[in-house]
Amino acid sequence: VGFFFSLISFLSFLFFFFFFPDISLAEDANSVANQLYSIFPFFQDIQVMLVVGLGLLLTFLPRYGLSVLTHNFLLLNFSMQWALLLQGLVHHVHHGQVHLGLRNILTAEFAAVTVLISTGAILGRTSPCQLLVMAACEIPIYFASEWAIITHLGVLDVGGTITIHVFSCYFGLGVSKALFRAAQQPVHPKETPTPRSDLMSLIGTLILWVFWPSFVAVLCQPGDAQHRAILNTLLAMSASAVTTVVASSLMDRDGKLSPGHLQNGSLAGGVAIGTVADMAMPPVAAVALGSLSAMMCLLGFKFLTPFLLRKLVLQDQCGIHNLHGLPGILGAAASAVAILVAPDDTAGYHLSPTGGNALCQVLGLAVAAGGSLLAGLLTGAALQAPCLAPPPQRLCFDDSLYFKVQDEDPSIPSHNMLRVSPLHGH
Amino acid sequence: VGFFFSLISFLSFLFFFFFFPDISLAEDANSVANQLYSIFPFFQDIQVMLVVGLGLLLTFLPRYGLSVLTHNFLLLNFSMQWALLLQGLVHHVHHGQVHLGLRNILTAEFAAVTVLISTGAILGRTSPCQLLVMAACEIPIYFASEWAIITHLGVLDVGGTITIHVFSCYFGLGVSKALFRAAQQPVHPKETPTPRSDLMSLIGTLILWVFWPSFVAVLCQPGDAQHRAILNTLLAMSASAVTTVVASSLMDRDGKLSPGHLQNGSLAGGVAIGTVADMAMPPVAAVALGSLSAMMCLLGFKFLTPFLLRKLVLQDQCGIHNLHGLPGILGAAASAVAILVAPDDTAGYHLSPTGGNALCQVLGLAVAAGGSLLAGLLTGAALQAPCLAPPPQRLCFDDSLYFKVQDEDPSIPSHNMLRVSPLHGH
Amino acid sequence: VGFFFSLISFLSFLFFFFFFPDISLAEDANSVANQLYSIFPFFQDIQVMLVVGLGLLLTFLPRYGLSVLTHNFLLLNFSMQWALLLQGLVHHVHHGQVHLGLRNILTAEFAAVTVLISTGAILGRTSPCQLLVMAACEIPIYFASEWAIITHLGVLDVGGTITIHVFSCYFGLGVSKALFRAAQQPVHPKETPTPRSDLMSLIGTLILWVFWPSFVAVLCQPGDAQHRAILNTLLAMSASAVTTVVASSLMDRDGKLSPGHLQNGSLAGGVAIGTVADMAMPPVAAVALGSLSAMMCLLGFKFLTPFLLRKLVLQDQCGIHNLHGLPGILGAAASAVAILVAPDDTAGYHLSPTGGNALCQVLGLAVAAGGSLLAGLLTGAALQAPCLAPPPQRLCFDDSLYFKVQDEDPSIPSHNMLRVSPLHGH
Repeated sequence: VGFFFSLISFLSFLFFFFFFPDISLAEDANSVANQLYSIFPFFQDIQVMLVVGLGLLLTFLPRYGLSVLTHNFLLLNFSMQWALLLQGLVHHVHHGQVHLGLRNILTAEFAAVTVLISTGAILGRTSPCQLLVMAACEIPIYFASEWAIITHLGVLDVGGTITIHVFSCYFGLGVSKALFRAAQQPVHPKETPTPRSDLMSLIGTLILWVFWPSFVAVLCQPGDAQHRAILNTLLAMSASAVTTVVASSLMDRDGKLSPGHLQNGSLAGGVAIGTVADMAMPPVAAVALGSLSAMMCLLGFKFLTPFLLRKLVLQDQCGIHNLHGLPGILGAAASAVAILVAPDDTAGYHLSPTGGNALCQVLGLAVAAGGSLLAGLLTGAALQAPCLAPPPQRLCFDDSLYFKVQDEDPSIPSHNMLRVSPLHGH
Repeated sequence: VGFFFSLISFLSFLFFFFFFPDISLAEDANSVANQLYSIFPFFQDIQVMLVVGLGLLLTFLPRYGLSVLTHNFLLLNFSMQWALLLQGLVHHVHHGQVHLGLRNILTAEFAAVTVLISTGAILGRTSPCQLLVMAACEIPIYFASEWAIITHLGVLDVGGTITIHVFSCYFGLGVSKALFRAAQQPVHPKETPTPRSDLMSLIGTLILWVFWPSFVAVLCQPGDAQHRAILNTLLAMSASAVTTVVASSLMDRDGKLSPGHLQNGSLAGGVAIGTVADMAMPPVAAVALGSLSAMMCLLGFKFLTPFLLRKLVLQDQCGIHNLHGLPGILGAAASAVAILVAPDDTAGYHLSPTGGNALCQVLGLAVAAGGSLLAGLLTGAALQAPCLAPPPQRLCFDDSLYFKVQDEDPSIPSHNMLRVSPLHGH
Repeated sequence: VGFFFSLISFLSFLFFFFFFPDISLAEDANSVANQLYSIFPFFQDIQVMLVVGLGLLLTFLPRYGLSVLTHNFLLLNFSMQWALLLQGLVHHVHHGQVHLGLRNILTAEFAAVTVLISTGAILGRTSPCQLLVMAACEIPIYFASEWAIITHLGVLDVGGTITIHVFSCYFGLGVSKALFRAAQQPVHPKETPTPRSDLMSLIGTLILWVFWPSFVAVLCQPGDAQHRAILNTLLAMSASAVTTVVASSLMDRDGKLSPGHLQNGSLAGGVAIGTVADMAMPPVAAVALGSLSAMMCLLGFKFLTPFLLRKLVLQDQCGIHNLHGLPGILGAAASAVAILVAPDDTAGYHLSPTGGNALCQVLGLAVAAGGSLLAGLLTGAALQAPCLAPPPQRLCFDDSLYFKVQDEDPSIPSHNMLRVSPLHGH
């Protein structure tokens, strides 16, 4: 319906790319080759995470699988192109010439991740047009926030815990609050996962879990720091997985696991470890951080999400506050502690030549959370425009709104036969 | 039933391998190691594409999933072994000694890809024996065609657009035409995808989409050319994805997406970019090529496939002409234009030392399409032999013809209980 | 319920990690970096195999998918942490200082694989507590067995055929025998796969099939030996795949394939090739070994498993004896033959500086099978403890025992509506 918007924006991309004929590949053969072969395997892992893993994770909505995969795929590509263009524009203004390489695409993809995470707060009750407008707004705000946090404040955040996870979580919550306002959304019958959709979603979790170390380590200094980042992430995520199963079972009266807990808690350690992954620290710290973040994630699902819904009328469809917000805050706090505790004479901080600063980490967290919440609220207000075609309540969470699919009603097995039989005469 | 054939051919493989005791690994340690570590990650990506991604893409037939995965897997392995043997035979005659390495296996796998693509035209209405015979015929014809196009004509085609995609598409269409002749196949009730089978197929698309850059870039010159190939493929496929969503929605009266469009259109850019991927060109060219090929693919599904079916009685089950034929032709045309436009003094063409030739590209396209169509027609005629056990019409598109499965009829929940209950007494 | 046990064991991990503050990353920058970049891609492949591939392979039980994926995931992480701790402890006693690196994690993961395989014998009729206790017992026994076979006897087994596959198979069978004793388990109605669960399981097989070469080759000497290991594994698995399809079809009266045969037989070649993968041998040997092992696997399913169940009352839920036991024995025999046949003057054996010894291979096989069977019987007896909460017979193979899921009964389409409708009033 309103997809025209998307077409226009897309054509403008083409136009822009035309406008910058000096966007070309870097030509220094040796460095390019080295860069390529050290980054490309990580890059592919991250692509699998975002396109397949994250897409499947969101298919827990049983009748919304096609839409979820498609929206995730569309938003990733749209945001990535938009981020690439913005990068090129800024670079062009500053340096006159623009080189395009795998590293640029990686940075653009990291920007796109924030959009995919924020979407989780409003999934199912929004139209593609609304999501595209949100993406168009979020990308420049992300770049500004990342510049303020990393370049200006000098925050250590190799895995994007603060700049990506905390930022996108509070942006998404802001959008959700401003978009749905005080109108509490009724629980939709198609919102409840089935065992089958939970299974698909769990497969998505497992894919994300496997490739997460690549996501955290890709932008580390090659060598020791990268090795440390991979090991610490592995330990933290392994601890998260075990803790999640144990804690989810202990939280339930009958000792049963909740699929939603598993799908999210197992990944919490990967979110939290991002700030400190490349620091030299005892393995027990990574294990403890992973365990703690999984517990916070589960407690969030059990107590905080219902509380926010009841008191603040804040809708958080996929529980992004539990997976990205709480572990992100924990990770930021952990990095501040790690910097305070670290002996002065070790060069454990490989990102910033001047060493880290515990206060800066906390400041960075505040900037990421506060700025994005504000920006999210403004963006959410803009998304209420009726021309963006928000879906009617009764058609939420349903593929048939966006896809030409025949309804699959297994209780009428002869359905197919009947519909197609006239054609048999041909 | 007729599977005996396959056994015999397989035993003959063993026999041949015995016959060439001098097939051994290359022994130059240094080059082997380097070759291994630069190719192996690409090789694994391609394996995932062919075995998992392509298999899942074809599971859009709701009751034919096991068969489709198995046939794809069997044909890949059979064709790969057969191609390896043919390569060894030719090499043996010419050089006396044969070395086996990862690069040979990769070339054999590329030959096998043509079989997997051609199968798409006749999927569901053919027996495994027919498919194996087709594979046995197609592999040597592919090698001949590839020799004529690449070695003889000097066509630039690093990603196999002409030699693999165009070739296998017209081979498959030829087989389909000769096999089914003028008898229009009625629409089969089990042919219609369900939301669930569309979801599985879309996951296959996403896997193919993620790993496609490896497929295009694996045989490039390491370094700059390979880097360019990866970037251009990424840009083209990203453009394809966005264009497909927009165009599919615009083409429908209600603005709804067709799952089939998404499953195919998102990949069209990867097919088209293959001829020019490693050339130095502005990024806008890759983006435009990706967008155009996605549009052609969708227009093909909407207008050309029904037209071919009505006028030429040409069956194209998976729409391979839209995904491989049209974007392949577009890619060949693009390469001719790129060669004409390119300034003479740049060494942008890394495959052919003498530079490319626009006329050769067009000639190569003609050879690939014409030769394969003819060969396909002959092969299709041979597949009509009754000893190859073509499946009866009413059992097409059904796993139960080839698999010992119990019918899953969800409307009778007590089915299982009843069937197994006698054993409870043990 | 009894998950308390797991919590306690997990806290003890944290405690132990605290106790060894000298567990730190290796600090020799150059070697670490090289080790990282040569191992990491293999490591990721293996993670995908174990977490996603193996998990999906086990989802052939139609109502037990969530449990199977979760148990697999939990056991992998628990066993890996436990193995890491044991390694650290032993190393600490011997050398005083412990370094943690990707290679240690890889060794720990290999130990965890034995637990995942053994689980296959008792899957569905056991509680998570029982499985965790089994894991806690199996890991130290594996390390002892591996020390005896590799370090003491000098057995050549680069792909873990003897030390991992044969060991874990007979351990699992021992556990199964001692746990279920003479009480023949009735065939459970939820045990029978559906086409849909068979499809998921087949996807798991394909993922395992694709990445298996990485599993076999990861611990080889880099260079020629690793290249050989990859090629031989590829050839063996390709032969297995074709043989499985042909043989399964020939074994059936109607020529139909059994999904279970395909899911297991295609992988048999990878199990068998492990002992000889890095040796210099003609390709025909790898092809023949792959074919033979697939045939043995299928014959095992057809004749041996029913025989064992009838005569020895031995339950083998997933047929691990056919996939891991029989091909493992074949691989061990093949390695003995290869050593006997090999000319003395070639240095074809890259693992043992003193060359291999055919007798040692046979002795190693006997130690692996005999020792693990004994240890498995003892472990199985311990698992009968009622405090480990074995599931009641009628709730076996059912997710609802361990998960908070609503029952998905497709014959009552209005179910969801009814349950949630009261909330619509909000």
